[in-house]
Amino acid sequence: MILINGECREHVEISDRGFQYGDGLFETIAVTSGQPVFLKRHLDRLNAGCQRLYIPFPGAELLTFEAQKLSQNSTKAVLKLILTRGSGGRGYRQPEVIQTTRVLNLYPFPDYPDIFKEQGIIARFCDTRLGLNPGLAGIKHLNRLEQILARAEWTDPEIQEGIMLDRDGHVIEGTMTNLFYIKDDALYTPSLSLAGVAGIIRDIIMAISIDHGMSVIDHTFTKNELLTADEVFVCNSIIGIWPIKQIATTCFSAGKWTRQIQAWFTQFQNEATGHGL
Amino acid sequence: MILINGECREHVEISDRGFQYGDGLFETIAVTSGQPVFLKRHLDRLNAGCQRLYIPFPGAELLTFEAQKLSQNSTKAVLKLILTRGSGGRGYRQPEVIQTTRVLNLYPFPDYPDIFKEQGIIARFCDTRLGLNPGLAGIKHLNRLEQILARAEWTDPEIQEGIMLDRDGHVIEGTMTNLFYIKDDALYTPSLSLAGVAGIIRDIIMAISIDHGMSVIDHTFTKNELLTADEVFVCNSIIGIWPIKQIATTCFSAGKWTRQIQAWFTQFQNEATGHGL
Repeated sequence: MILINGECREHVEISDRGFQYGDGLFETIAVTSGQPVFLKRHLDRLNAGCQRLYIPFPGAELLTFEAQKLSQNSTKAVLKLILTRGSGGRGYRQPEVIQTTRVLNLYPFPDYPDIFKEQGIIARFCDTRLGLNPGLAGIKHLNRLEQILARAEWTDPEIQEGIMLDRDGHVIEGTMTNLFYIKDDALYTPSLSLAGVAGIIRDIIMAISIDHGMSVIDHTFTKNELLTADEVFVCNSIIGIWPIKQIATTCFSAGKWTRQIQAWFTQFQNEATGHGL
Repeated sequence: MILINGECREHVEISDRGFQYGDGLFETIAVTSGQPVFLKRHLDRLNAGCQRLYIPFPGAELLTFEAQKLSQNSTKAVLKLILTRGSGGRGYRQPEVIQTTRVLNLYPFPDYPDIFKEQGIIARFCDTRLGLNPGLAGIKHLNRLEQILARAEWTDPEIQEGIMLDRDGHVIEGTMTNLFYIKDDALYTPSLSLAGVAGIIRDIIMAISIDHGMSVIDHTFTKNELLTADEVFVCNSIIGIWPIKQIATTCFSAGKWTRQIQAWFTQFQNEATGHGL
């Protein structure tokens, strides 16, 4: 089922600036037991992205209503929410009056095996680098060619994720995930001020780890530093947390801290879901 | 009139990866006297872009047929041609079998006053910087948020173009144009190996200037170097060549070399149009 500006449709006008220029934003939201998980956080990020791109935000109330309407009969699904600057304007110049296009679409939940969460995945380093752009860094916008080129680098089904560096050689994220590593009982994650998507689950993991007394450091590091980590994991709204057991030829244990953070996260998620957050 | 995969339609599926991720390419082509101008060059660039993004090219013969069909009754218009990776795939991962979406759309020719071409325009420097990405540099892809943010920086109708720098402070291009400057009788243009769109008109200007014995240098330079130029101009397929008479507070003459190159270009264009190139 698809809702476009509140109506059941499956098509957008080709004049829509989302199609013409990737002029918009999106959220990918897990749905469990008829509820979009962490919906408020997703809408807050979407609102922040709208402010960065000067796209009028349709309002949390309307988006919540539509998201819940679409999700209510699903035991488990993925809700994708896209906002674009709509149609109009002259070339890149935005129209005087922006009519935001909103698209909500429910997809089947991907069938990732439990073993990824339990025993970890194999990752690789991608050759495709992320461009640096503070104006676009952090937000989940529709310009995703870098991720598509990175994901096209491998077809080996044993490899579940590719790790992307920026042009300066700093580790930023996975093609579809945020990344953390643990070293000497402290938690590290890349700074996303110049590139990358600041994920909802990344924010939650940082907050709950700090709440449990862990030292959490958001900084800039190279792949050599990553390869000396004790443990590495990736996360997003659909997969939750996957340990990384191997990057290229370097092996890691899905160790005690990753298990601990998975447990904290599951507890947090259960409590949040119970309270409809 | 719009042709989508050969049919008269106005909508694309929201599952199209052009809408989901900006996963595609486009060309903006001038139409005069029922003919798309420099069509072969546009299709060659589109084909090269398809190879870079691993999108199957629908073939020059088919695209030429459809472009001419759409253009044949127009005295003056703009033909926009979009190719996307179509629908399918799992997230950023491209589908096993790619069904390229092709969209051809005819627009009214913009009503730029002749004075821009004759006396020049006023430009500004944009704060929005271009990210550096050799994998995407040069091609005219659908990820255009940087240009949209740059174009949103000003509303003053006296200013016709914004000049964009990359993150290292090098001049790359205008938001919708390529840029040249003249200094001591030589022609300079930014190197586009890390950012920017390698325009059809830019290629032609470089080639005809070399043919006429000018020294043409494609290199990396800063805005301070640009501001010491004798003459500056911008170009694209729709506007042709516009002298720049002022950037920020620095004035330039629409001098003898810009006039000369405009004349060479007009001659080249007339000959090409006569031969249906």
